[in-house]
Amino acid sequence: MKYINELHEGNKMTGVYLCKHKQPAVTKNGKSYENVILQDKTGTIDAKIWEPNSVGIADFDSLDYIDVVGDVTSFAGALQVSIKRARKVKEGEYNPADYLPASKFNIETMYAELLQFIRTVKNPYFSQLLSYYFEMDTELIKAFKNSSAAKNVHHGFIGGLLEHTLGVTRLCDYYAKAYPILNRDLLITSAIFHDIGKTKELSAFPQNDYTDDGQLLGHIMIGAEMIHDAAQKIPGFPEKLEHELKHCILAHHGELEYGSPKKPALAEALALNLADNTDAKMETMKEIFENAGDNNGWLGYNRIFESNLRRSSEE
Amino acid sequence: MKYINELHEGNKMTGVYLCKHKQPAVTKNGKSYENVILQDKTGTIDAKIWEPNSVGIADFDSLDYIDVVGDVTSFAGALQVSIKRARKVKEGEYNPADYLPASKFNIETMYAELLQFIRTVKNPYFSQLLSYYFEMDTELIKAFKNSSAAKNVHHGFIGGLLEHTLGVTRLCDYYAKAYPILNRDLLITSAIFHDIGKTKELSAFPQNDYTDDGQLLGHIMIGAEMIHDAAQKIPGFPEKLEHELKHCILAHHGELEYGSPKKPALAEALALNLADNTDAKMETMKEIFENAGDNNGWLGYNRIFESNLRRSSEE
Amino acid sequence: MKYINELHEGNKMTGVYLCKHKQPAVTKNGKSYENVILQDKTGTIDAKIWEPNSVGIADFDSLDYIDVVGDVTSFAGALQVSIKRARKVKEGEYNPADYLPASKFNIETMYAELLQFIRTVKNPYFSQLLSYYFEMDTELIKAFKNSSAAKNVHHGFIGGLLEHTLGVTRLCDYYAKAYPILNRDLLITSAIFHDIGKTKELSAFPQNDYTDDGQLLGHIMIGAEMIHDAAQKIPGFPEKLEHELKHCILAHHGELEYGSPKKPALAEALALNLADNTDAKMETMKEIFENAGDNNGWLGYNRIFESNLRRSSEE
Amino acid sequence: MKYINELHEGNKMTGVYLCKHKQPAVTKNGKSYENVILQDKTGTIDAKIWEPNSVGIADFDSLDYIDVVGDVTSFAGALQVSIKRARKVKEGEYNPADYLPASKFNIETMYAELLQFIRTVKNPYFSQLLSYYFEMDTELIKAFKNSSAAKNVHHGFIGGLLEHTLGVTRLCDYYAKAYPILNRDLLITSAIFHDIGKTKELSAFPQNDYTDDGQLLGHIMIGAEMIHDAAQKIPGFPEKLEHELKHCILAHHGELEYGSPKKPALAEALALNLADNTDAKMETMKEIFENAGDNNGWLGYNRIFESNLRRSSEE
Amino acid sequence: MKYINELHEGNKMTGVYLCKHKQPAVTKNGKSYENVILQDKTGTIDAKIWEPNSVGIADFDSLDYIDVVGDVTSFAGALQVSIKRARKVKEGEYNPADYLPASKFNIETMYAELLQFIRTVKNPYFSQLLSYYFEMDTELIKAFKNSSAAKNVHHGFIGGLLEHTLGVTRLCDYYAKAYPILNRDLLITSAIFHDIGKTKELSAFPQNDYTDDGQLLGHIMIGAEMIHDAAQKIPGFPEKLEHELKHCILAHHGELEYGSPKKPALAEALALNLADNTDAKMETMKEIFENAGDNNGWLGYNRIFESNLRRSSEE
Amino acid sequence: MKYINELHEGNKMTGVYLCKHKQPAVTKNGKSYENVILQDKTGTIDAKIWEPNSVGIADFDSLDYIDVVGDVTSFAGALQVSIKRARKVKEGEYNPADYLPASKFNIETMYAELLQFIRTVKNPYFSQLLSYYFEMDTELIKAFKNSSAAKNVHHGFIGGLLEHTLGVTRLCDYYAKAYPILNRDLLITSAIFHDIGKTKELSAFPQNDYTDDGQLLGHIMIGAEMIHDAAQKIPGFPEKLEHELKHCILAHHGELEYGSPKKPALAEALALNLADNTDAKMETMKEIFENAGDNNGWLGYNRIFESNLRRSSEE
Repeated sequence: MKYINELHEGNKMTGVYLCKHKQPAVTKNGKSYENVILQDKTGTIDAKIWEPNSVGIADFDSLDYIDVVGDVTSFAGALQVSIKRARKVKEGEYNPADYLPASKFNIETMYAELLQFIRTVKNPYFSQLLSYYFEMDTELIKAFKNSSAAKNVHHGFIGGLLEHTLGVTRLCDYYAKAYPILNRDLLITSAIFHDIGKTKELSAFPQNDYTDDGQLLGHIMIGAEMIHDAAQKIPGFPEKLEHELKHCILAHHGELEYGSPKKPALAEALALNLADNTDAKMETMKEIFENAGDNNGWLGYNRIFESNLRRSSEE
Repeated sequence: MKYINELHEGNKMTGVYLCKHKQPAVTKNGKSYENVILQDKTGTIDAKIWEPNSVGIADFDSLDYIDVVGDVTSFAGALQVSIKRARKVKEGEYNPADYLPASKFNIETMYAELLQFIRTVKNPYFSQLLSYYFEMDTELIKAFKNSSAAKNVHHGFIGGLLEHTLGVTRLCDYYAKAYPILNRDLLITSAIFHDIGKTKELSAFPQNDYTDDGQLLGHIMIGAEMIHDAAQKIPGFPEKLEHELKHCILAHHGELEYGSPKKPALAEALALNLADNTDAKMETMKEIFENAGDNNGWLGYNRIFESNLRRSSEE
Repeated sequence: MKYINELHEGNKMTGVYLCKHKQPAVTKNGKSYENVILQDKTGTIDAKIWEPNSVGIADFDSLDYIDVVGDVTSFAGALQVSIKRARKVKEGEYNPADYLPASKFNIETMYAELLQFIRTVKNPYFSQLLSYYFEMDTELIKAFKNSSAAKNVHHGFIGGLLEHTLGVTRLCDYYAKAYPILNRDLLITSAIFHDIGKTKELSAFPQNDYTDDGQLLGHIMIGAEMIHDAAQKIPGFPEKLEHELKHCILAHHGELEYGSPKKPALAEALALNLADNTDAKMETMKEIFENAGDNNGWLGYNRIFESNLRRSSEE
Repeated sequence: MKYINELHEGNKMTGVYLCKHKQPAVTKNGKSYENVILQDKTGTIDAKIWEPNSVGIADFDSLDYIDVVGDVTSFAGALQVSIKRARKVKEGEYNPADYLPASKFNIETMYAELLQFIRTVKNPYFSQLLSYYFEMDTELIKAFKNSSAAKNVHHGFIGGLLEHTLGVTRLCDYYAKAYPILNRDLLITSAIFHDIGKTKELSAFPQNDYTDDGQLLGHIMIGAEMIHDAAQKIPGFPEKLEHELKHCILAHHGELEYGSPKKPALAEALALNLADNTDAKMETMKEIFENAGDNNGWLGYNRIFESNLRRSSEE
Repeated sequence: MKYINELHEGNKMTGVYLCKHKQPAVTKNGKSYENVILQDKTGTIDAKIWEPNSVGIADFDSLDYIDVVGDVTSFAGALQVSIKRARKVKEGEYNPADYLPASKFNIETMYAELLQFIRTVKNPYFSQLLSYYFEMDTELIKAFKNSSAAKNVHHGFIGGLLEHTLGVTRLCDYYAKAYPILNRDLLITSAIFHDIGKTKELSAFPQNDYTDDGQLLGHIMIGAEMIHDAAQKIPGFPEKLEHELKHCILAHHGELEYGSPKKPALAEALALNLADNTDAKMETMKEIFENAGDNNGWLGYNRIFESNLRRSSEE
Repeated sequence: MKYINELHEGNKMTGVYLCKHKQPAVTKNGKSYENVILQDKTGTIDAKIWEPNSVGIADFDSLDYIDVVGDVTSFAGALQVSIKRARKVKEGEYNPADYLPASKFNIETMYAELLQFIRTVKNPYFSQLLSYYFEMDTELIKAFKNSSAAKNVHHGFIGGLLEHTLGVTRLCDYYAKAYPILNRDLLITSAIFHDIGKTKELSAFPQNDYTDDGQLLGHIMIGAEMIHDAAQKIPGFPEKLEHELKHCILAHHGELEYGSPKKPALAEALALNLADNTDAKMETMKEIFENAGDNNGWLGYNRIFESNLRRSSEE
């Protein structure tokens, strides 16, 4: 089996791929066929099933993993697969990590570093709250490790939420040393919790799409509620600490028009907002450069940065 | 005892008034005195204690109720009281309703109407949720009846939250008849709950100021959390209903820049936003006209409405 | 004859349809043909005339009603008609109401309700002004009954202007009871007149497009001028009343950036703006849901409401 | 009699001045007096009537012209007049031009130039329309010559409307030569009419304040209506021309948020907007420099230009 | 040879044309061909090379001038050339002015007028500065004459920078007479220099695209630096004059959000901004009308002017 | 001599203070006196010279250092000095650092750290450029050490520019490690240069006000020009590097509306903008808390952060 980014015109394609999308269609002369998009971790490729009801084509749906035999051709300058045989495979016959975009960093290594940060929090209530989710709630831990940090924009891959959370926490750790007005415990705790609501706002891969409550409530509100629910279960958790921590979550987008119902009113909320913004923008820029491949020239107008962009010279 | 808006130059002032504000000061020639503002439900008046340490002047603070003897004079075109004797009185010696701005409508009558609306909600979960707070939580009921709907702007008086909630609920009741796409139960329930967080965002009268969690979280977040906490306690409360109801609360300011973390995504959230906006603006206009007294001319530029305003002609 | 939304692949199409659009085209191998869009009140369908100069194809233009014979086929997943014969028909051979989108409510019933509201206006000048147009100007009455309230957005169908005007007037009637500061006569009169300029801003159906003066002046300016012209003809019409009424028309979009040259300066102008906004938004939402058919899930991002939308749950 | 800007401490003040403002007040020890502001065309000066009911002090009101006898003193670094005698004078005893800010240019000379421009308009309908107001309507001509172009900002003096109209017309005349796409007749006519509504939006001097219809309708709407009323009386006036001319008036503020209900849709409307903006901004800058006197340094932040300002160097 | 706007279906195309764009492609059945766009000063036409490797097709690239033989056909309603033979020609075999959009005015005549304006500047330092570039720097002079004033929008043709600079300078000359507060020398000098940075921001025709430093710095910064570099070389050039002139360049876009790092702080900077805006908008409107050909109706919504546009009536 | 924040009512004031402000005034009964503000590094105090022409009062101006003898009294609740004798002292008789707000960090220590960073830059051209100013230009070095980073807002004290530059450089050093896409040499060099224009935008202490070229050009433009001038003098300095470095300076405010003529187009420009924003906001917050003294409650609405602010709880 070859990765999609290794295929060339004339190749035979064989092996298991994720069917990202599948839709029936009709040719101009009235013949039924099917448009399919196949995916692995290196990219996607268009495919056609010209004989949907032939013997070798078993039934399958979008988001199934299928064992494919087909021919790689070229159409209008792009590669296209003509699928001859297709069979839905079962969990266990494939490794999802081969088919989905994933963090370049090892997830367990990153999680270990997150736990290290958690151990540096001295306030006993914050410490218990972190432990409640990140050490004891196995379902949350699993979801947290696998979530992306976004549907589209930055960190939109498996482990993306963890990678981003770690990037923000490291920045906050730096800030806590550089700016003594900051209460480190509150800052580190809010950094680790800041996007926890995304475990519920987005469904798991391969779907990675907004859930119903994600649409209705958003990860900011969901995250604040998760903190509230846990704090209720920790005896003696001071209300003021709960409010300050929830405030940091609520305010971490920095501006009302970015979906924060409150502007930062505490120095730690401000610092969290700055760290989140910094890590998100630097990662977005990195992904743009990665997608540009070898192109060292101007990459065209980018709507997020409202500017044409290019890499700086190598010197 | 006379109400403040009945006092004239030369009058003797006697009786119990609320001390809204008290601050020590020094005259140009170095003599200590105290600036005081006295309040009853008809307004406020400036007062001075020229002999702070004299026999008749007992110790008291801002927001105490005091029994006053003084002379009404005129200074720079405004009335001023020279306080000769002052004594702090105890709870029971006065009726707070005489000293604080209050709704013109009877609070119990309004509350009865609210309960009537609650009884029209047929969905058993919404019905239980409404009952949880508005029929069984006596502390919440007391707070709800006494709260204002705002520190400054509209409905900033005792019973204001109830009066505004009722105005919004009546509008939603009208909408439910006029626009059949609306789910009446969801709409009426969200109308009644929409500002419930204000019972915690603002402290009780006479203070009526933002609380610490009011500042950090805001009434939108607090209200959604109150719904969540109660829904947790109602067996079988469907998650989807809880999310829809919380969404209506979150979105009721209509725009992110007005502090809603979500724009309305359901027709009921949109309708609630329209009703809230309508009742708030009409009440604000009404209060502007009341403050204008007999003035039927142009009242000057108003920052909320971004326009000079006047009453329309009587015809 | 079948309605367009009842056609299936393989059907014969016969009967009179509105030709909404017609444009000559050329196939890749140089053959002339014609693209046509046929319409009835249930929707539109693409059609092709592959032999434009054949015997059965008589001459006709866009916006003509034509008697068609054709075959219903399927192309790229959508239905398409191959027109074999076409003949332009005359007024009288068809009922326009079958071909154009129209209000679901009976126009005469709605107009009768509007006249009822007019009779409740007590001020003699406003009463005469309403009568001048809505009881005596037969041309205006006809135009008013047939106009849409918009080219695209909400109420974009025959009777739409009347239905929207009635919706706004009913809301204002409710407001007048709920908020005693409002001068009912001024409010009801301005509600009925608020979009009267649309009878001139948009051309009649089936065109329903901006007129030249609609583009240059807009319905707000046109409406104010219509009031002015009639007031000139009513002896003794007080200038102040004319100005207040015109102000309500000018300010009813609420914000300068929405095309109102003045922000509301009277309570009635504010109320009219709130009623117009409420009725327009609720109708827009209703039309979105109608277009969604049976889809109870998320309908996708909507640019007017700046949100993904869905119906609330049935309970 | 001395002009106000020639008075010094110790002078006797005698002569007729405009009483711009008058308001009763009370001293700290309870004595009644009156605050007065006197004005002539060179500026204003504070004055006090310490003995309001004394023999020499006759009754008068704000905006009366009064014959004054008083002493010029100095208080807190500014001059102040102690009025000993005051008598209201009648029309004819004074020349208003001595008391009100006025254009530095001769009004009749400017008006003659305006008439010259009118004679260059060849289109017979525009020509008659201009004549209707500017040659035949004596009341309008008088008002037009005396109006300011604004209450506060630029050209806020007698003859200001005429001076500004002329400045805009001259610019449009230049544009018509420089940019051949422009229809000169439409442009010159709309330039001359563009602010005609200000004759009714602002009351006459010395008041120069917004009228009731000025507040409710604004000069843009009033101006368009004046054109409409005259066009109705000119036989055969083409509707299309009337609409184009009214469009230029409506759009001349250039942006909806500046009170234009339409953005420029014709080249002439755009040109008029550019000319109006240019003349208004250059005059505003000129008035800022005049008020700065000899100061060639930085004049401080200016809110209109959102910048600190200074004169350029003399070289 | 025929100009592109004179070609018809069935014509033979022969002669030299600019190859604006060339890109290899593959037909559905796998055959290689090339998409080409040919250009002359009258427009562009699509072309295909169906046999890229045949004898008559020599090697050439985008932006080469090529001698073409081909057949003009029609496809999907538009003309298309099938190229049979193509040969790259050398400089000298063609006149670039025939192939590129160019000012309708004679470049040398315009430049002579610019030099006339330069001679009216009396200040010796400004005079030397103008001479440094516009009389002595032959490379700059050549670039200035050939540059466009923009990649897309207004004056996007050879000589466009000169034509726009002259239009702005003439307006400033008019302003200097009309508004005596203006320092004519500073204003005329800054008008002539205002867009000089565009000679480096955009590459020469036929490319006319942003350069690397154009992207990174922009013509405002580049222009200010060019003034600085020359002023350094003129003995005794007063710093204050240099700063004022650079300020006018920096501020000439008028608003920070349009790329000016400073708002106008001098009357001359304001005047330059008004002149630049006026000339740019009038030219943009002119180009829209030219592109509309004979269409005297509504031309559709224009994003620059945020309005539907049409020519005014002829009359 | 006592520091100003140590003075009490009844004290004798003796010693050298900075006269921050001095202005003649007149009492109600016409007597001349002078208002003076005295300053040292601990704060300011109001003072009066009641006998300006008496023997002990020598001539002096605003911003002179004066040797004062006076009595500390209390007026309207605030301390006030009655100056009996005053004498202007010469440079050398005082240490400016005692009279002006200054960084809490040692300036030489900070500068040594900056030089350390400079030594880590490997690119020879950037290295020379840094050396040109920060190691060889003694005047610039002196100015850089003494400048504030702002007139009002953050880092508005001696050494403030150095302290802020160092804070930004440290953050960029952290970013370079955390985000490998960043070119460290370009980033560190642009961090060190980013506000260098402030040495010319603001005049030296004690004045610390905008200079003429600061007003006209701003520190962004001045800084880019300083880089340009030095790069011209370094043989072989690559144009592309100069443009990239200048771009980082131009874009470091991040948004056009904050005075950057370009949005960040390089990752390093983005990183610099994030670092500048982070350090400025954290320092602003720190100064707000310092000014709040012991107040751990809500500090009131802050316009920069658009929020009420408070310290987080101590835990």
